[in-house]
Formats: sequence, structure tokens, C-alpha cells
Amino acid sequence: MNYKRRQRLAVRRVGTDIEALLITHLPDVRYLCGFTGSNAALVLAGAKAVLFTDGRYTGQAKAEAVGTKVVIAAKNAVIAAIEWLEAAGLGRCGFDETQTTVAALGRMRGALSKSVKAKARREMFVEVGPVVARIREVKDEDEIAIIRRAAALGCELFEHMLGFIDGGMTELAVAAELEYRARLRGAEAMSFETIVASGGRSALPHGRASGAKIPRRGFVTMDFGVVVDGYMSDMTRTVHIGRANVARKGVPGERDVYDSVLEAQEAAVAAVAPGVTAGEVDEAARSVLRRVGLDGYFSHSTGHGVGLEIHEGPRLAAKQTQVLAAGMVITIEPGVYVPEAFGVRIEDMVLVTAAGGEVLTPSTKAWIEL
Amino acid sequence: MNYKRRQRLAVRRVGTDIEALLITHLPDVRYLCGFTGSNAALVLAGAKAVLFTDGRYTGQAKAEAVGTKVVIAAKNAVIAAIEWLEAAGLGRCGFDETQTTVAALGRMRGALSKSVKAKARREMFVEVGPVVARIREVKDEDEIAIIRRAAALGCELFEHMLGFIDGGMTELAVAAELEYRARLRGAEAMSFETIVASGGRSALPHGRASGAKIPRRGFVTMDFGVVVDGYMSDMTRTVHIGRANVARKGVPGERDVYDSVLEAQEAAVAAVAPGVTAGEVDEAARSVLRRVGLDGYFSHSTGHGVGLEIHEGPRLAAKQTQVLAAGMVITIEPGVYVPEAFGVRIEDMVLVTAAGGEVLTPSTKAWIEL
Repeated sequence: MNYKRRQRLAVRRVGTDIEALLITHLPDVRYLCGFTGSNAALVLAGAKAVLFTDGRYTGQAKAEAVGTKVVIAAKNAVIAAIEWLEAAGLGRCGFDETQTTVAALGRMRGALSKSVKAKARREMFVEVGPVVARIREVKDEDEIAIIRRAAALGCELFEHMLGFIDGGMTELAVAAELEYRARLRGAEAMSFETIVASGGRSALPHGRASGAKIPRRGFVTMDFGVVVDGYMSDMTRTVHIGRANVARKGVPGERDVYDSVLEAQEAAVAAVAPGVTAGEVDEAARSVLRRVGLDGYFSHSTGHGVGLEIHEGPRLAAKQTQVLAAGMVITIEPGVYVPEAFGVRIEDMVLVTAAGGEVLTPSTKAWIEL
Repeated sequence: MNYKRRQRLAVRRVGTDIEALLITHLPDVRYLCGFTGSNAALVLAGAKAVLFTDGRYTGQAKAEAVGTKVVIAAKNAVIAAIEWLEAAGLGRCGFDETQTTVAALGRMRGALSKSVKAKARREMFVEVGPVVARIREVKDEDEIAIIRRAAALGCELFEHMLGFIDGGMTELAVAAELEYRARLRGAEAMSFETIVASGGRSALPHGRASGAKIPRRGFVTMDFGVVVDGYMSDMTRTVHIGRANVARKGVPGERDVYDSVLEAQEAAVAAVAPGVTAGEVDEAARSVLRRVGLDGYFSHSTGHGVGLEIHEGPRLAAKQTQVLAAGMVITIEPGVYVPEAFGVRIEDMVLVTAAGGEVLTPSTKAWIEL
């Protein structure tokens, strides 16, 4: 599988004038060779793949990075990789300038031997952009199988929480329960800080769980994800404690907003298909909210890719021209936030398939009054 | 307090030829102006401090960044900051090249107006290194008060776990319980993925909690931390289930190793004082293990600074010449890992005081048999 991934990368690189590629972003390293340690540099050169790490990872690197030559370095892995490149007589080497600090590039150049002239030193490392991140956008079968498990665990947890949440408990207690159950069911970690935003706090798009008490009447938004075998899930559901408030001066009705967000979310899910642009999916959600005059309260983008990182490409936002392709896994998460009143967000993970989109988080989105 | 911190920074910058400083690393932004949002750029120029963020954070930025001018930008915060710098007629601007990607620097230069000539464009941004990270190494009273609370919560959790751990339960169940109690007691998050490494897995310095069962007889190492008001705690204790194994061919006795690690840890804690180098503290631990022939199994450094990030300066490793100063908060965490047999690590957080070192994690380090 790693070999196939490297082949995809090689195909994409055709036409560039580099002889090697240096990969230091850890999710990219993991993707291309399977190694999960915290100190790593991977060099791809022709059919060769060489992983550099340190003595803490001798056994782990050999077990994980099957089909990759492993070099245990006494020094920094990146420096060791560059010395290897130079010893192998390789010329220009591509690197991802979006994942490499200015200081790191300086160290890379500094690792070349003194005999390398200033001009050659400057030109040795070539900015090739996030080439690995781009191929990671389209998931392969192995990845999809893991992501399905992560998403399914998210749904199980939501189901559990429906029986747990009650007015009067703190948001933190809700988050604690959710994370505890996630751990007991095998999650390695949460994908990000769990959001539990209730009552007026539901109007905050990123209301991390606080000491605030869940009200006896009002919304509770839960946005959370689990990590399974390195892959992240991400889902949001908003439920209501007690009966919904009807519209009053300047504030729309709670149930009306919920229904509109749900309609927007489902419209965007229905728009997902290979060949459709990210902007079109965003517009599918946004136009529903525009029709009912709520688009001004939808203050963020519609979604993002998800995989080994919680935010990957593509970005589903207004006017984004990137075209969706089968195998991408994206979130669809419109929301409406009425300042100082309440907010609603509904989010699924969707796999782009040949036929359209498959929702990986099929937990109910129907109106729930607890 | 933010003002005082900015003053310390200004003092340190005396003698450089820059007119402004651009800060984009989020812990640095938080440290200098109090803002905790996820999109931010802070510009310091003379006595001025200007924070750039986006519309999601209008209310939060004004509430948190007291004494700082807030600009809500429609575009990327860094780009907005650079347009402001140019409009203000400011010349060379310092930035931290260890926290800025090559691509970000390109975008910064690209944000300058077209009238800026190529040479001026290249020279506008000046590498000044991690200047904020360096002043963050010495904590002020506000920070120390928060760190004390985080460390104390860590100790409470360890105490709780002593009554919970038992042979036969999985490492994950132990981690789940620990994290659940942390959340219920108000932790915002864990500082890092909780390590629960038992039996043979205790020989892994970074054995994240797994599905492995705690043995009926053997070590359990717990290395964990909580986040309180943005500050991290970090502590490790190793306890034993059942009676210790005595030395056998090629493998030292469990109790002997424990006693040596404890002696090394206490020697390093005793060596902490202002004016002492980081390398001397490391050597205090290492020399104890060398004397009993266990230094070959101590495969990492003795400790690190901790604060808004889990790994900050100073780095306590062999030959490090950095001098400790009152107000630094560091970990002291020697360990011995006998491959495929067992491992022991003991870690405290220590505040460097005028008089020496104060342990912030006073949980017992005595031999514990559960």
C-alpha cells in the first residue's frame, strides 16, 4: 500500500526537475512509509525510499516502515537525510515549503558540506508545495476502512450521549463522559478539543466545553471526533433540552433555525459528487440559508477534508474551484449563530463516491428534544 | 501583566535594527496580549501593540486583549498586519524564523505593495529567532500561580489512580479513568497523549496507553499532564503491581533499578538552582546512574521547560550550557529502560527559586506495591 502511494506521488511529480524529495511533515511520512514516530525524515529518490530516525525508534521503524530502508541516525533525522543525499550524489531535492520553517531550511542548507558553493547551496532545495498533502486528499481503501471505523465510533458515542445529557450538568461533565466512553471503546485520542456549547454559548462556533451549566431549556451543540489508527473523525449534532422557543423580536425561532440548518446541510450533502467544485457544495448550503434570510449568521465555511489530520484539503468554501474526486472524505457542517441568543450546527463526514456522496456518520439529524 | 511582558521583550531587543516585531506563533501571541483565538497576528512597534484577527473573534479579542488595539480583518491576519505595517511607514520588521514556514515568509513578502522594490522586499523581514519563547522561559507570578494549580491537579489525579489501578485492566482503561477525572476536575485538556506503559511495555519511554492488560506483577508507568488556563502540567510516577522481581542473568532487579532512578531524580532536583547550567542538572542525574552501571539505559535527556507549551526551553541535556534562572519551570525526569524487560521513570515539575528548586508535584515517590 505504501508502495502504491509512493507511485501516485511519482506520477504527480513527472515533469519537475528534481532528483529527490525530502519529506519531514510527520503525517506525510506516516502516509508514505507507515512510520509513526516523532522524529523522522523520509527521502524518495527514484524507486528508493529511505527513512531516517533515531535510536529510540530502532525496533518500531523496522516493524512499521516495511519496504523502506531505515537509517538510525545519531543526529537530527533531517540533517542525516541531507548528508545521505549528498553522499548519494543526488542533485536538486524538492521539499514542502508550507511545512518547513525558514530556520529549518537554513539548517538544511547548512548541513551540506563546505565544498558546496553558495549558488548550488541555495538551489539545492526546491519548493514543490504540499505534494503529499494533495495526494492524501484522495483516500485509498485501507484509509477508508479505518475512517469508517472512526466515524462509526463517533456515532456510537453520540447515541450514548443522548441518554446522558441533562439540564443542570456542566458542559465539562458532558465532554468528560464523551471522552471517557471514547477511550474505553479504543479511541487513541480525541481529534480536537471537544466542543460542548449550550444555551447562549451555542452561538459560539468554537465553544469548547466550559464550566457553564446545560440550561433546562435551550440548545446543546456537540462537535467532537476520535482518533482511530491515526485517522480522525469529526461530527456535530445539536439537540434541544425542553421545548423550543418561538420567534421573538429580532431573534428567529429555534425550531425554524434548526430546520433551515438541516435543510442546508442535506442540500450540501446531496450536492457532493465527483466533478463538482468545493464552491458549489458550499453554495448548496449557503443558498438555502440565504433564501430564509439566515446566511448572514453562517460565518464560516461549509467543510474541509479530514484524514490523518483534522483539517486537510479540499476546503469547502465560497468560490473554491477545487473539483471533488471519488475517495475524498470531507465534512459538511453549515451552522447558524444568532449572537447572544443561540446557535445550531449539524455536521457529517461524507465520502465522495463514484455515484455521489456517502454519509459516514448516519446518526439521526431529526429534531431531538431531551 | 501583558504590558510588563512586552516591556521585557523590548529590553531584550535593544540594539537590534528593527522597527517592529511580527508575532504569529499562537502561544507567543497569547503570552503577550492574552488573546486565545486560533487566527492571530500581533505587531509590536515602539509602545504600540496591535492584534489582528477575524470576525469570529470580535468579542473575544476585545475581552481578552486588554490594552491592545484590536483590528478585525476580513482577510488573513498576517496579511492584514503587514498592510498595516506598510501603511504605518514602518521599516524593517523582525519575525521568528523558527515558527514561520518558508511559504508564510513568501506570503508576507507578497503582501507588500507593488511599489516596494525587490531588495527592500527581501530585507523588510528580519530573522530575530525565538525571542518571545526565550522570555517565556522565565515565568512571572501570574503564570506560576496557574502552573501551581495545574501541577496540583496532576498530583490529585495520581492519588486517585492509586486506588484505581489493578492487574487485569487495560492500559486504556487506566488512561480513560485518569482523563475522565481530570476533565471532571476542570482540566481543559490533557497536555499530551497519556502514557500508561505496563509490564514489558514500561521499557518503552513513550508507550502511549494501549489495549494491553496491566500484568498481575510488574511496573506501571504513568506519564501525564493537564491543561489549566492554557498552562500544562507534566509528571510521571512508576508503581509496581505485586512483588518486585530480583536480579537475574542480564537483567537488574526491579527494586534496585527503581531505587537508582529515584536517587538520580532526587540528585537532579537537588542540583537545581539559579546559575547552574542545564547540563549540570542533567549530569547530576546521569552520574548516579553511571555509578551503578545503568546510564546506558537512560536514553533521553533529563528534562525540559514547560508552560503554555509542553516542551519549552531550557532543555536539560548533556553538555547544555544554558544557565537556569529563578522563575523557570522545568521537568526532572530520568528513566531507565531495560529492553524487553521493564522500565522506570520518575518525573517532577520544579520551579527554579532564588534559593534552589521547589518541587511543584509533591506526590510520593516512595516505592509503591499495589
